[in-house]
Amino acid sequence: MTPTIGVFDSGFGGLTVLRALIERLPGARFAFLGDTARLPYGSKSRRTIARYAAESAQFLVREQGAEFLVIACNTASALALDAIQDAVPVPVLGVIEPGAIAAREASTTGDVLVIATEATVHSHAYAAACRARGLRAIEKACPLLVPLVEEGWTDHPVTAEVIEIYLNELRAEAAAQGMNQDALVLGCTHYPLLRPLIERAVRPGVKVIDSAEAAAEQAVEIFNGRVARAAGGAAAETEIRCFATDSVEKFERLGSRFLGRPVGHVELIDLGG
Amino acid sequence: MTPTIGVFDSGFGGLTVLRALIERLPGARFAFLGDTARLPYGSKSRRTIARYAAESAQFLVREQGAEFLVIACNTASALALDAIQDAVPVPVLGVIEPGAIAAREASTTGDVLVIATEATVHSHAYAAACRARGLRAIEKACPLLVPLVEEGWTDHPVTAEVIEIYLNELRAEAAAQGMNQDALVLGCTHYPLLRPLIERAVRPGVKVIDSAEAAAEQAVEIFNGRVARAAGGAAAETEIRCFATDSVEKFERLGSRFLGRPVGHVELIDLGG
Repeated sequence: MTPTIGVFDSGFGGLTVLRALIERLPGARFAFLGDTARLPYGSKSRRTIARYAAESAQFLVREQGAEFLVIACNTASALALDAIQDAVPVPVLGVIEPGAIAAREASTTGDVLVIATEATVHSHAYAAACRARGLRAIEKACPLLVPLVEEGWTDHPVTAEVIEIYLNELRAEAAAQGMNQDALVLGCTHYPLLRPLIERAVRPGVKVIDSAEAAAEQAVEIFNGRVARAAGGAAAETEIRCFATDSVEKFERLGSRFLGRPVGHVELIDLGG
Repeated sequence: MTPTIGVFDSGFGGLTVLRALIERLPGARFAFLGDTARLPYGSKSRRTIARYAAESAQFLVREQGAEFLVIACNTASALALDAIQDAVPVPVLGVIEPGAIAAREASTTGDVLVIATEATVHSHAYAAACRARGLRAIEKACPLLVPLVEEGWTDHPVTAEVIEIYLNELRAEAAAQGMNQDALVLGCTHYPLLRPLIERAVRPGVKVIDSAEAAAEQAVEIFNGRVARAAGGAAAETEIRCFATDSVEKFERLGSRFLGRPVGHVELIDLGG
């Protein structure tokens, strides 16, 4: 039987990771959980995030039978990957390491910029993962980008202006440190929806790295053989079940922008939080 | 003994209400709780908000001895005032009714505009409270304004542009309904920090109503006699204790902008959510 891949996010931004996974693993079974009752994780403490993420991971494994987990949430990957790995007996993949690996492959200067939520930046998880691969990285929190995406202003002059302001501040900091960056990592699952505006705002020669796509690439390396074997080579239908802890209507309404297809029915669950 | 007034918000925006209360009730004792672990309420369902707000109200009454409660959160006032009143045995004042009363006093045309969070607008609580006073009101959700305030962009050209866009959309809708508005209600406790920009964006003759100040005015009518009596006419020191369920550091750092003075030590509490 095809194994179920569990995909978890604090909201529905992680649907960009699910989208990248579906493209690469057609015919697989997916269970996606958005912990929408308790979002955003980005402004909460490590202790709280670890508890929420562990409970969500346990739902996907125990209730939905997920045999692999992709943590499609940069904040949870940065602050709670250990706690999630301790909480469930299945392999768990975050988005930070794949993002850093992709940056290593893309950069020739070794200098990398990272934009993310406040909590992800505060954790310095990207800088540490980059440093472990010989890269120098500086990170910047861009707290307005998620609300701008959720407002639907993904191609709006205000959003372009906000991106320009954030990137100018980041470039000034990089220049002050004598950096010569040639890669920008999108360290939040909402940011792929802003990719066209961000591509226009970066300097020529700077590659934009999408950690959602990077995580999907790495998941494929881990899961692909097994999914293909289980499917027996037959062109099975992709199966997607979506769950949320709150605001199911908003999930169904906005989620399709992230997933690139209708999300269909979203089932409301209660994690008791 | 001076009674304690409990003030509750999902975050620290309600400190604008506390500020307005302190100005009007010097020498009183205040206990403020920001349920920061579970904010924002604005994007959550009525059921979830009611549970969170009831638990928070019980903390202020049972643990802190509050004898009055001011719900300094438009979303909780709109969606959970009944649930809070059922949960605690003390008088409870929300911000919606005072906002509508102030609009009634300010408006001569009877046509009123309201800006607020998504959940507050979705509840139509302001429209209902205005209608009960013979006013015609239309409401607009402005989801970018809270993040802009929290980013500290309270006097930023981007924020001015966003306000202009939102107000233009709202004015177009009002014009389509043949309205002749002369008042704009700020239906979110973050918005008083944007008051200078909003004052510049409204048409001449349109009065800006701050529901935080309106709520404080009404609280004074209810509490003042009692606080003055208890204080025995002596110029007692205002006593403020602040509690939060998460992100105490962020509360201490940003809270002073809302309170207009340092918030001092914020105590972390666990409501088990």
